[in-house]
Amino acid sequence: MANPTVAVLGAAGYAGAIAAQILYRHPSFELSAVTARAEAGQRLDDVHPKTRVPLELELYKDHTPDAAVVAYPHGAAAPVVAELRARGVRVVDLSADFRLRDRTTYDDWYGEHKAPEIFGQGVYGLPELNRDAVAGSDLVANPGCYPTAALLGLAPLAKAGLIGDVIIDGKSGVSGAGRGATATTHFISADENVSPYKIEGHRHTPEIEQELGALGNDVTVTFTPYLVPLAQGELVTSYVTPTRDVDADEISELFDDLYGAEPFIELRRGPVGVIDVRDTNYCRISWHHDPRTGRVIVFAAIDNLWKGAASQAVQNLNLMFGRPETEGLR
Amino acid sequence: MANPTVAVLGAAGYAGAIAAQILYRHPSFELSAVTARAEAGQRLDDVHPKTRVPLELELYKDHTPDAAVVAYPHGAAAPVVAELRARGVRVVDLSADFRLRDRTTYDDWYGEHKAPEIFGQGVYGLPELNRDAVAGSDLVANPGCYPTAALLGLAPLAKAGLIGDVIIDGKSGVSGAGRGATATTHFISADENVSPYKIEGHRHTPEIEQELGALGNDVTVTFTPYLVPLAQGELVTSYVTPTRDVDADEISELFDDLYGAEPFIELRRGPVGVIDVRDTNYCRISWHHDPRTGRVIVFAAIDNLWKGAASQAVQNLNLMFGRPETEGLR
Amino acid sequence: MANPTVAVLGAAGYAGAIAAQILYRHPSFELSAVTARAEAGQRLDDVHPKTRVPLELELYKDHTPDAAVVAYPHGAAAPVVAELRARGVRVVDLSADFRLRDRTTYDDWYGEHKAPEIFGQGVYGLPELNRDAVAGSDLVANPGCYPTAALLGLAPLAKAGLIGDVIIDGKSGVSGAGRGATATTHFISADENVSPYKIEGHRHTPEIEQELGALGNDVTVTFTPYLVPLAQGELVTSYVTPTRDVDADEISELFDDLYGAEPFIELRRGPVGVIDVRDTNYCRISWHHDPRTGRVIVFAAIDNLWKGAASQAVQNLNLMFGRPETEGLR
Amino acid sequence: MANPTVAVLGAAGYAGAIAAQILYRHPSFELSAVTARAEAGQRLDDVHPKTRVPLELELYKDHTPDAAVVAYPHGAAAPVVAELRARGVRVVDLSADFRLRDRTTYDDWYGEHKAPEIFGQGVYGLPELNRDAVAGSDLVANPGCYPTAALLGLAPLAKAGLIGDVIIDGKSGVSGAGRGATATTHFISADENVSPYKIEGHRHTPEIEQELGALGNDVTVTFTPYLVPLAQGELVTSYVTPTRDVDADEISELFDDLYGAEPFIELRRGPVGVIDVRDTNYCRISWHHDPRTGRVIVFAAIDNLWKGAASQAVQNLNLMFGRPETEGLR
Repeated sequence: MANPTVAVLGAAGYAGAIAAQILYRHPSFELSAVTARAEAGQRLDDVHPKTRVPLELELYKDHTPDAAVVAYPHGAAAPVVAELRARGVRVVDLSADFRLRDRTTYDDWYGEHKAPEIFGQGVYGLPELNRDAVAGSDLVANPGCYPTAALLGLAPLAKAGLIGDVIIDGKSGVSGAGRGATATTHFISADENVSPYKIEGHRHTPEIEQELGALGNDVTVTFTPYLVPLAQGELVTSYVTPTRDVDADEISELFDDLYGAEPFIELRRGPVGVIDVRDTNYCRISWHHDPRTGRVIVFAAIDNLWKGAASQAVQNLNLMFGRPETEGLR
Repeated sequence: MANPTVAVLGAAGYAGAIAAQILYRHPSFELSAVTARAEAGQRLDDVHPKTRVPLELELYKDHTPDAAVVAYPHGAAAPVVAELRARGVRVVDLSADFRLRDRTTYDDWYGEHKAPEIFGQGVYGLPELNRDAVAGSDLVANPGCYPTAALLGLAPLAKAGLIGDVIIDGKSGVSGAGRGATATTHFISADENVSPYKIEGHRHTPEIEQELGALGNDVTVTFTPYLVPLAQGELVTSYVTPTRDVDADEISELFDDLYGAEPFIELRRGPVGVIDVRDTNYCRISWHHDPRTGRVIVFAAIDNLWKGAASQAVQNLNLMFGRPETEGLR
Repeated sequence: MANPTVAVLGAAGYAGAIAAQILYRHPSFELSAVTARAEAGQRLDDVHPKTRVPLELELYKDHTPDAAVVAYPHGAAAPVVAELRARGVRVVDLSADFRLRDRTTYDDWYGEHKAPEIFGQGVYGLPELNRDAVAGSDLVANPGCYPTAALLGLAPLAKAGLIGDVIIDGKSGVSGAGRGATATTHFISADENVSPYKIEGHRHTPEIEQELGALGNDVTVTFTPYLVPLAQGELVTSYVTPTRDVDADEISELFDDLYGAEPFIELRRGPVGVIDVRDTNYCRISWHHDPRTGRVIVFAAIDNLWKGAASQAVQNLNLMFGRPETEGLR
Repeated sequence: MANPTVAVLGAAGYAGAIAAQILYRHPSFELSAVTARAEAGQRLDDVHPKTRVPLELELYKDHTPDAAVVAYPHGAAAPVVAELRARGVRVVDLSADFRLRDRTTYDDWYGEHKAPEIFGQGVYGLPELNRDAVAGSDLVANPGCYPTAALLGLAPLAKAGLIGDVIIDGKSGVSGAGRGATATTHFISADENVSPYKIEGHRHTPEIEQELGALGNDVTVTFTPYLVPLAQGELVTSYVTPTRDVDADEISELFDDLYGAEPFIELRRGPVGVIDVRDTNYCRISWHHDPRTGRVIVFAAIDNLWKGAASQAVQNLNLMFGRPETEGLR
């Protein structure tokens, strides 16, 4: 039987290109189309040589593959996703358009939703926490990069209702700012620099709060992102004030129980660095219990373009199509 | 009248070299000697070309200048400082040996003190907070780099007793790890990476707590440092939970009152980046009041080798010798 | 007597901003105006914090200072320079518009000249080779960055007519590509990469050939530039096949004779690196005679924005106004 | 039938670790042992997390696998290779010990050979130029990184005897300087810097000359290497003065004929960058014919640790064991 066909829409962006790169070599999917707007007519491996995907980028029109990875900005994604769903195409959407479940929250942070008729139908695609729902879904909302790392780091504590208060400090490489040439992404701005951004509030905050709530731990989150001078990688630190006294043994058990069998979670002792998960779907997690303050500090490192976007999309596709979760990702 | 002579001991290290560079061109001091151990016999501008100080590095023996900047590691500094003081030399010590005022705390974090007879005699050399004491002192303990940024960022709140709780997240360039060639300072370890270090506890924690206490705000601090892939620069974020409700106007007034006239403090709105203070004695500070949580987030950016070490030492020397505080530093 | 006034036109670009930074602190000039187009109305130290020049950027109109540094792109510079000259303003022009002396060559490489009535009136502003002419000129054409390094490296051999053939390989930091946000200057393009550009021919080639000819050594040059992942700095290697056998002693004498007394030339043995001249007006030069091939390899390192543009402009201004050549530059 | 076993000796170094990483996942080899000296007892994926090879590093003693990749420094490699060969183990040696075929040349550049009894028995393992000899060999000398890129770029011209003279300018990332923590590999030395090294002569020069001669084109080479601030990647430019007039069509035909069917050679027009071959076995080649000088300029980009060492070793192993040349390498 032929492999399911998958199209990557918006394959000229960083995440779309990597999704195409993985799917092109995936044993159980056939990459049937890659689309782009400005770059239509060029070959993907000319725009993004590292993909080595020798397909021509097309304009999107009436593609009807078995599944689609939609790598559009929020706002632009929603109507296309609605169209695809109407044609029966199964979708993993990389934008924020189907992550939030409260319409008012979405509109406050992102502006009016562009496909309200299917708002809220997406399953939040963090496989480690939501595996079964993803497997049964036709519309998966791929998590944001910071929420991926933050939630994976916090989930063991959140499931136990242990998070009384949490400050999240996220450090991201420059690819997180997108492929557009802007003052922010100019080499001279980022090189030898480190600075916070979106200090008045980052859109990933409500997403993190929603999913912590879904794990049973309602909490107001302080989240500040920073740009660091590297291409790919994200280190997210969560400073947790627990709801009650916990000791290292208890924490250890919570993390081991939840993640002991996870193929893409690497629990480590001591410092973790983003270079160790570069170009992979792994999330490295380390935690420290500070006996002086009682705080638990959790470090989670991912590649923002891979586990924080493209490879996690493929992990979700694997689940949606009944394939082994790790297929094509190692 | 001849200018006072100053020797820089340990001028082969990064901070010592910069101190020598500044003093060599300072209108009111005469750089009389630069010393080193392994590099003795070489010229400073061969070891550190950017200094353009054409002096030969000597072995330290019985130097008796009017003042000395001691740029030795902790432990090694104390006995030399004692010796210099016994000869009447006025000292700015860049090590941790005279920063702490509690002997037990020192010994716990650094090992047994090597010159206990003068322990505790140092004045904490953060001019913006301690100007008069520095001016009258013969032994100034130059602050650590993280404490410099953290304390400058927190002082307006601490003086008002507003810090109920604080988490400090410090991101430093690789020069902070010293000139020694180690696994940590290898290009391949640091490049394209970001990772925490000393997560079990960093020696600057008690120093920060001591000085916050001296400002009238006793608090237990959570502090975690990170290495980011750049040469010089340090961004320190303090996430403060206030002791009571404060609003932006009140905070604004506290910062403006304390720093409005400070020559080396640059209060900014919005994000601050370390590149903007590179190779300078400036500290850029920005803060944000988060109405959702009531938290105050303070960002402070310095050059770890300048305001965090060498140029702050000269700022202290200026005060000690009655010179304009900014002389030689702009 | 009041200091001469100087305006920097185009101060929002990298080179213009640094020229303004130097002139603002220069003891013998008064920075009277800084202009920009898109950034007019903003303060220079907001656009370029490192300058710490608290002047507001104005639109250029009828500025008539004693002198102007024009930091416009080629083509845009010529008519403004003509206007300034007509008002009697002495000009250092950073563009290519007045460097070439052959009109056809200019038009071939840059398009039709925009102020042909004064074409060819510029003195080539490489002080080390052209000091007297600069001192007597009212219109100085500041050299390109690559030509500055290449010519300083080659001049001792060229003056002796020793260059039979030369291949020039130039490696530049990303600031050389300008402040515009483009695919080339995007962090993700430049980071961890090195690649040639303009391999079909770079506009600095005829400039280098013209000036080698002016030194008495006509030669056709092969020149290829490369982008390396750093902000400022340029290393230019010239591989010279001599016209006759030379030995190391002879070469040594040629370099020492020409540069022994030069304040901004640093002759070194062994490798030179761009970090050592960062943020300075120095040019470091090293050479190697390969006895196997008879070739002479010359390495010249400059900061492309300083000696390659802004600080060299001030060096020229010093000469034009009879000031010590090093004033304000150390 | 069981897969052949392969041991990687010296797997704690960069190249050895990558060889182990590739072989661990190779469908036709079984990675049977990884050895190290200082790191023995640690797991390879603790020393080099990116490999994700969960094997313990052992001390080397009497390993007798079917084949070995020896990743020792020159001098240290020779006696071990001799031992392995005596036990019938097929060897790919990453050092220089078996690359040169002239004993005097070897001794001049590297010191006295440590296993003279088998000196000269190695086949030079550049598969694209030497495929058949590699396939029939039991001792393959893996080429140096610079020679790999230089020779692949020059071979089409060399085979036609067209190289009259050649200057080679090679730019390498810092991993080329090895895993040892030294002044050279310190982040602060390499960051924001570019500088030549080994300007008096680099050991890869005779290797390049030998192999050009083997292709039928004896020529004395000028070769200068440079360190650029990136982790992995090497761009080698060859400036060729041809023996006679050639035009672009003829050159084009030479490159297309030789490389049209090569799986790991990517011929490109225009600039090539090292980022595009990072972490791969590909070599990207581009050339430019300069009609003004008649010169041919060839650019070749590789990953110095992959095609310049580890993955090329596996490519050789594939040939030696009759496997498809690309197996495990895409």
